[in-house]
Amino acid sequence: MKNEKTEFVKDITNMEDDFAQWYTDVIKKADLVDYSPVKGFMVIKPYGYEIWENIQKNLDKRFKQTGHKNCYFPLLIPESLLTKEKEHVEGFAPEVAWVTQGGNETLGERLCVRPTSETIICYMYSKWLNSYRQLPFKYNQWANVVRWEKTTRPFLRTAEFLWQEGHTLHETQEEAKEEALTMLDIYKEIVEEYLAIPVITGTKSEKEKFAGADKTYTIEALMHDGKALQSGTSHELGQNFAKAYDITYQDRNSKLAYPFQTSWGVTTRLIGALIMVHGDNRGLVVPPRIAPTQVVIVPIQMNKEGVLDKANEIKNSLISKGIRVELDDDTANTPGWKFNEYEMKGIPARIEIGPRDIQNGVATISRRDTNEKSTIELDKIADEIPALLEDIQKGLFEKAKKRRDEMTFVATDFDMFKERMANNQGLAKAMWCGDPQCEENIKKETAATIRCIPTEQEHLGDVCPFCGKPAKHMVYIAKAY
Amino acid sequence: MKNEKTEFVKDITNMEDDFAQWYTDVIKKADLVDYSPVKGFMVIKPYGYEIWENIQKNLDKRFKQTGHKNCYFPLLIPESLLTKEKEHVEGFAPEVAWVTQGGNETLGERLCVRPTSETIICYMYSKWLNSYRQLPFKYNQWANVVRWEKTTRPFLRTAEFLWQEGHTLHETQEEAKEEALTMLDIYKEIVEEYLAIPVITGTKSEKEKFAGADKTYTIEALMHDGKALQSGTSHELGQNFAKAYDITYQDRNSKLAYPFQTSWGVTTRLIGALIMVHGDNRGLVVPPRIAPTQVVIVPIQMNKEGVLDKANEIKNSLISKGIRVELDDDTANTPGWKFNEYEMKGIPARIEIGPRDIQNGVATISRRDTNEKSTIELDKIADEIPALLEDIQKGLFEKAKKRRDEMTFVATDFDMFKERMANNQGLAKAMWCGDPQCEENIKKETAATIRCIPTEQEHLGDVCPFCGKPAKHMVYIAKAY
Repeated sequence: MKNEKTEFVKDITNMEDDFAQWYTDVIKKADLVDYSPVKGFMVIKPYGYEIWENIQKNLDKRFKQTGHKNCYFPLLIPESLLTKEKEHVEGFAPEVAWVTQGGNETLGERLCVRPTSETIICYMYSKWLNSYRQLPFKYNQWANVVRWEKTTRPFLRTAEFLWQEGHTLHETQEEAKEEALTMLDIYKEIVEEYLAIPVITGTKSEKEKFAGADKTYTIEALMHDGKALQSGTSHELGQNFAKAYDITYQDRNSKLAYPFQTSWGVTTRLIGALIMVHGDNRGLVVPPRIAPTQVVIVPIQMNKEGVLDKANEIKNSLISKGIRVELDDDTANTPGWKFNEYEMKGIPARIEIGPRDIQNGVATISRRDTNEKSTIELDKIADEIPALLEDIQKGLFEKAKKRRDEMTFVATDFDMFKERMANNQGLAKAMWCGDPQCEENIKKETAATIRCIPTEQEHLGDVCPFCGKPAKHMVYIAKAY
Repeated sequence: MKNEKTEFVKDITNMEDDFAQWYTDVIKKADLVDYSPVKGFMVIKPYGYEIWENIQKNLDKRFKQTGHKNCYFPLLIPESLLTKEKEHVEGFAPEVAWVTQGGNETLGERLCVRPTSETIICYMYSKWLNSYRQLPFKYNQWANVVRWEKTTRPFLRTAEFLWQEGHTLHETQEEAKEEALTMLDIYKEIVEEYLAIPVITGTKSEKEKFAGADKTYTIEALMHDGKALQSGTSHELGQNFAKAYDITYQDRNSKLAYPFQTSWGVTTRLIGALIMVHGDNRGLVVPPRIAPTQVVIVPIQMNKEGVLDKANEIKNSLISKGIRVELDDDTANTPGWKFNEYEMKGIPARIEIGPRDIQNGVATISRRDTNEKSTIELDKIADEIPALLEDIQKGLFEKAKKRRDEMTFVATDFDMFKERMANNQGLAKAMWCGDPQCEENIKKETAATIRCIPTEQEHLGDVCPFCGKPAKHMVYIAKAY
């Protein structure tokens, strides 16, 4: 066993020592992602992609249940189209990749690789929409987008990422608002119930909202290191794009009208959130509902008669319960190496079974979340594993919520807030005056930003602790990815 | 009824009069696709995208069953990486879109928008592969690709299209060959059993094979107008890319070795095949197994008591059988308009139900494929529809196969072949000498190309009818999309 141990010690940095390095170690050692030869572009490896497929599947189902249809719009957008909505182009132009040559020809007009698709979708919507009878338009697209970011980190901020972008048109502002909020709720539901990450819902400040939107709703999560991560956004675009792109229709009174628009998206960034909320110093921890493999079976002394048969029997009994299970019968690696490998990959539960276990009619189950081991009777495994997985799922959410709550504090004065931010210490609740100047100042002094004006407001006082003016809202403030 | 009729007559061109125009009319009127503001780029509309999702779902399942995993590689590829495999870059460089600017900076090296991903995947594989123990690599990617085509037509040839590309590495040439052929079989299976399109499997000639491959296998289908469509390809890449990209590993004898490689792909072009194989002068015809909606229920005199209730009852009974069903209870459109609309969209079966039907305890079923109507007892609908759909599925395949066989002829001399090709008449079987010069000449004289050297060879004679030299293989020849 000695040799095994030295073999399988994988040096991931302790998160307490260097969180950024810990993150980098985990994504590499858990084999989620790799760096590509193009700066800032990542390769999503099979294990990372399987997590994304599970996120996709659950979101897509909810989109369809709420009446949305998928379609696909072009990757390249003519420059003249991008520039029609003034705020939008100002926000995106600096981070756009431009195609200027096609085959051997230089193009007459530059084409931008979509950073988001409002502009080209608006162009098509203006062709498609004629009458109020056609409304609402409720379309979504699963796609890749490119944003020429200077500083990148896999999943969190990459020059190319995968996402979905929903784009809808409505007759009234109320309907558009309802749509934007419904989609925010779906994001919250999937992120909390599947990724086991507690989120705060709220509205972005004027300064932080989407370029071209009237209002941006957000879900914000807190990472292990006390930084926040914007995990999904939903925008009320009002009639801004409709006017810039001339989307009009005949309304119920036969008058020409502009529709009200929304857009909303989540990205592969969610995988980054999952890593930084649940991971620990032994590696990744994947919540069972989203895990590509929920249970791994590691047979001990495989060459002994009956061990592999019994392991296969357990595997099949779990498959019949709808559990995603893998049996590692590779003879090239030792059980110790395998234990380490599957802990690193964050497989929620591991079943060990050897000759002595079989004699005793039991197997050993290890939980990845708590590291607890227990013995279970063989004929009860298939019945008990589903409940165990649900318990792990629930436990991960509760643990993350407890940690977030512990890292949340009330900022009562600027000095105290500065000090805590200097140490990266968590999520501040504070009253705020609503003045963009004050917001700018907070950012300049602490590098923290207003994450959102939460839906659930609390009255913490009457004045803004940052500038002394009368308070307007309660906000959450933190450093963010 | 008069008014209705004039209202719902949709003028699609007869395919016998102008097949290209018929195609364009169908894709527009069935609402599959639209033209975008960027020349050659299409927008895939919800109905078209749903068909693609169904194709995807079935392929993806088979890929996973055969041990493949999905991953995701970057969209942009450095020029220096693209140019390493000589034949490959010669084949693709003329049709590549180049990114030369990122944000406000001019890039030091141009980046190409992937036309296919062998080059970047080889770069990563050379990083990942060390030992024979890791082999095989069996990865697939679902992605968009861009090829700067001059003449485009939606689904068939577009500047951007959606596809999957599988990329595998193997220890031996035999294993690589087996993989390439297994994937070709899966393509044949999905295209024949789900899209109901009969295909011929075979090998491409040297001239027609993939740029950089040793051997290209293909599935070829015959369209309604007598032209062929290459519908999927699978390549044996040998060690060509491995050598160019320095992919090496320690083999079983501890020697450095190059792996054998395959790649294989199908695209949104399959939707074009579906349209041109099954469509008719009333519009699209979608095979039930791939149809987004398999059955549509059109209630007659909806305002009469009980009609909508009964229609919903039928709907629910079909849902419980796993049928994809829609009930059109829109009051803005007449039943006549709806009949026409769903015929245009190619929904396999339509159920009509009105007050008199309910009195008689029956409903009317119309088949899209044969246009036959029949009366069915209400309580038998749920039991009989699944068999009806299977019958339609089978019927479409048989009809397409019969048509292809009727359009297939033996080319016994060059003059006769030229005459038939001048009239676009179908698919020729012929013996062939194997000389690229002769192949070139056939193309020059007739615009037809050798589609493949079929797996199932027939002996039609001893000489090549095109040049008189001794025959080497039997080939299929046709004009092609």
